[in-house]
Amino acid sequence: MREIDLNSDLGESFGAYTIGMDAEVLAQITSANIACGFHAGDPLVMARTVALARAANVSIGAHPGFPDLAGFGRRAMKCSPAEIKAYVQYQIGALQGFAVEQGMQLQHVKAHGALYNMAVKDLSIGEAIATAVAAVDRELILLCPYGSAMAKAGEKAGLRVACEVFADRAYQADGSLVPRTQAGAIIHDRAEAVQRTVRMVLEGSVTAISGEEIPIRADSVCVHGDNPEALAFTRDIHRALEDAGVTVAPFASFL
Amino acid sequence: MREIDLNSDLGESFGAYTIGMDAEVLAQITSANIACGFHAGDPLVMARTVALARAANVSIGAHPGFPDLAGFGRRAMKCSPAEIKAYVQYQIGALQGFAVEQGMQLQHVKAHGALYNMAVKDLSIGEAIATAVAAVDRELILLCPYGSAMAKAGEKAGLRVACEVFADRAYQADGSLVPRTQAGAIIHDRAEAVQRTVRMVLEGSVTAISGEEIPIRADSVCVHGDNPEALAFTRDIHRALEDAGVTVAPFASFL
Amino acid sequence: MREIDLNSDLGESFGAYTIGMDAEVLAQITSANIACGFHAGDPLVMARTVALARAANVSIGAHPGFPDLAGFGRRAMKCSPAEIKAYVQYQIGALQGFAVEQGMQLQHVKAHGALYNMAVKDLSIGEAIATAVAAVDRELILLCPYGSAMAKAGEKAGLRVACEVFADRAYQADGSLVPRTQAGAIIHDRAEAVQRTVRMVLEGSVTAISGEEIPIRADSVCVHGDNPEALAFTRDIHRALEDAGVTVAPFASFL
Amino acid sequence: MREIDLNSDLGESFGAYTIGMDAEVLAQITSANIACGFHAGDPLVMARTVALARAANVSIGAHPGFPDLAGFGRRAMKCSPAEIKAYVQYQIGALQGFAVEQGMQLQHVKAHGALYNMAVKDLSIGEAIATAVAAVDRELILLCPYGSAMAKAGEKAGLRVACEVFADRAYQADGSLVPRTQAGAIIHDRAEAVQRTVRMVLEGSVTAISGEEIPIRADSVCVHGDNPEALAFTRDIHRALEDAGVTVAPFASFL
Repeated sequence: MREIDLNSDLGESFGAYTIGMDAEVLAQITSANIACGFHAGDPLVMARTVALARAANVSIGAHPGFPDLAGFGRRAMKCSPAEIKAYVQYQIGALQGFAVEQGMQLQHVKAHGALYNMAVKDLSIGEAIATAVAAVDRELILLCPYGSAMAKAGEKAGLRVACEVFADRAYQADGSLVPRTQAGAIIHDRAEAVQRTVRMVLEGSVTAISGEEIPIRADSVCVHGDNPEALAFTRDIHRALEDAGVTVAPFASFL
Repeated sequence: MREIDLNSDLGESFGAYTIGMDAEVLAQITSANIACGFHAGDPLVMARTVALARAANVSIGAHPGFPDLAGFGRRAMKCSPAEIKAYVQYQIGALQGFAVEQGMQLQHVKAHGALYNMAVKDLSIGEAIATAVAAVDRELILLCPYGSAMAKAGEKAGLRVACEVFADRAYQADGSLVPRTQAGAIIHDRAEAVQRTVRMVLEGSVTAISGEEIPIRADSVCVHGDNPEALAFTRDIHRALEDAGVTVAPFASFL
Repeated sequence: MREIDLNSDLGESFGAYTIGMDAEVLAQITSANIACGFHAGDPLVMARTVALARAANVSIGAHPGFPDLAGFGRRAMKCSPAEIKAYVQYQIGALQGFAVEQGMQLQHVKAHGALYNMAVKDLSIGEAIATAVAAVDRELILLCPYGSAMAKAGEKAGLRVACEVFADRAYQADGSLVPRTQAGAIIHDRAEAVQRTVRMVLEGSVTAISGEEIPIRADSVCVHGDNPEALAFTRDIHRALEDAGVTVAPFASFL
Repeated sequence: MREIDLNSDLGESFGAYTIGMDAEVLAQITSANIACGFHAGDPLVMARTVALARAANVSIGAHPGFPDLAGFGRRAMKCSPAEIKAYVQYQIGALQGFAVEQGMQLQHVKAHGALYNMAVKDLSIGEAIATAVAAVDRELILLCPYGSAMAKAGEKAGLRVACEVFADRAYQADGSLVPRTQAGAIIHDRAEAVQRTVRMVLEGSVTAISGEEIPIRADSVCVHGDNPEALAFTRDIHRALEDAGVTVAPFASFL
């Protein structure tokens, strides 16, 4: 019997600013990537989000990003590996300060935004992240795309790695995502996206934009809850997976 | 045989900005209060400072402050107790992210600047800090002045409390410090200050500005290493205490 | 013939975070208080807001606050008068950098949140703000409550002062607002609030919570556009004033 | 008779953190590039630095950088041209808020750190900066390296451009600097560096690292005052230029 995790970014509100439908998306997912105050989130939001996740029986992970609230962590910053390692350690530790109060342990770490995108391709950045994770707790699972430099860095650092797939994104023949700037990068037909997702999970295979069938490993599907449409799509994916006989559960339970 | 700890604020540099003679002061102290990135310090500085402290065999604690780098955490901010609790938890956790890498455990927490000063008098703020500390780790020791609201809050939260004294500050009859704005607040005669310190440690007593002898509990002496004069004074205090037969050791070893 | 200004806080979004229905509220007001990046707003938001205000033919002013994005400028910070003066100068200048591009001049300055509240009562803070405004441009009008320490400081600094009133707030016999923590502070009956506002504007008088009639000067009414209810209330006030024969216009046109 | 400007970065202190020997370097230079609070500097420091520059009869300019205090603006950030334009406008305006108080006008704008380095090569970033400068005040002079993309963007935007040279840096045959990562990038022999500078100013020519003589335009020499050695070098350059009969004056006086 096949199992899958659903992960989403949570706790992205900041002070008087609210982003995301956290309560609603928690009902659909099994793993929450919680912002840690660098690109989004603040200590009060973190405290609340950890408590919400616990109440919803959702596993939690740190979602470290660049120190760039104005850019929401989406702008590449040329930080040194030593800086990135320290930033990731700091953010994981900070989140643990709230998890322990709720009697929870962090399940995983998933880099955010530009940091994630850079680590997918740049091994030195992937290694900075992976060594930071290992420095804090070797039991933490690194959540990243299958076949990425970050996944390699995680394995090299002795971490368990969970691979995530994207329901509405097209893949290239080498297993990487088609860049958003290219035609066909986004799969707009939702039914098709849901079906692709079920196939990735059940068959470990996806049709690349070039037409080839390529192997892919799906431990988790990345879903969103920023707006009602995204949330509806998340519900569709969740239901379709269950209808296909897949058990939706946090990846720590089956990795 | 009497024991005493010497504590000092460390890791206050930030990015390209350097403050403090950390390497030199580490040779004199037994407990380092490490800034956690809110009022001073940054993740790289924290990583370095923890490693330096370990190499110097100095115990470490978190030194949380208000989120006010421009004011170095010295400006009172009217934060709610919930905000303060979350800020303190966040900062302790962040520092733990570096301590664990060095195989160290945090010994203590000492609030910084305006947060410290407010918690000395305001029980609700003291409780916000103490409950934050307890939420993260009940083994952490709260470092604060004898007889303060913060000390009471620490005991109420079930924490061990270490009491610190100040070598060059005059005390009022109720055991609180003479405010800096009042005449006589600072003891400028260093020899006198050193002798007062030895007496506070050995006899548990100090002469208040009013002339009365008052009881005081000294588990630690707060010392400084911001400049060569402060460092020389710290060396004098250290030597005088040892000459008087006092063992200088981290307070966790004798509390 | 009587004239009145309607002012509202605008440009409070930050990066990926959106607050306020700026486009809608601009259709109702004559003066926009634009956040300057300390408590809210960012440079891109400022550029957009100035352009929007110009398109809507709305006068603009700087809305400086404490450097506390996490607290939205609502938390009192014990800054020195020199710090406050420099913070206000900086923020006014920054906004001018966008106004000049649109061929606009700033009409006014209105302090935000905790800075506003402190300056209402504390003359030294009012003077810090007023001297900052005068240092940048003596033609700028200081927008503040009638009878406040800030209004006195503005006059002392040689500035024109515009007095604002609040439609839904109760007044004390001395002309100050009933604190929000007291019963009766908010006037929940909207029709009553609208009628009080029209009377304040036309008669220069309001019934204090103690029952007395007190004199009040209304050059501007502070309105809101944070949510649909606030916006509807703003529309009601606007319409009622026009129906009463009052001309709604920026205060620079009649002060 | 030949004239030259000497420019240096000033006002880089922040809150409790001090960088630079501003008072000493002001005695040697004719143009000060003042940090504007993004990568360094804060409003109080800006106020003080403008007053110091005025007292020293030194012309002032804005020194805008990326919003990255932790990285001192030295880390490349992938900001959009619209973001960069808004950041530069904001920072120029903010500095004007202090200049006007001292009866001074800004002479120029010089980008800082990574922003400068990116604009040297990337025309879209150069244009973002140049259009920001032009949007605030078309009389402002853009200070940048001869032959750079930024210089081209400045001319295209209708701005006067001042070209700066570096005393201790080697040049490539195309007029660009030898990257610091390459051997020979820095000219360690101070006497040689001083002589090269005098020749660049008097002859408009420099020997490239490849051995060729290349034309160069020197309106200003970039000098430093971060430490006693840098300051001594600055004094040497100043004296050698005067000894060679060159008049040291702000570039606005001869451009």
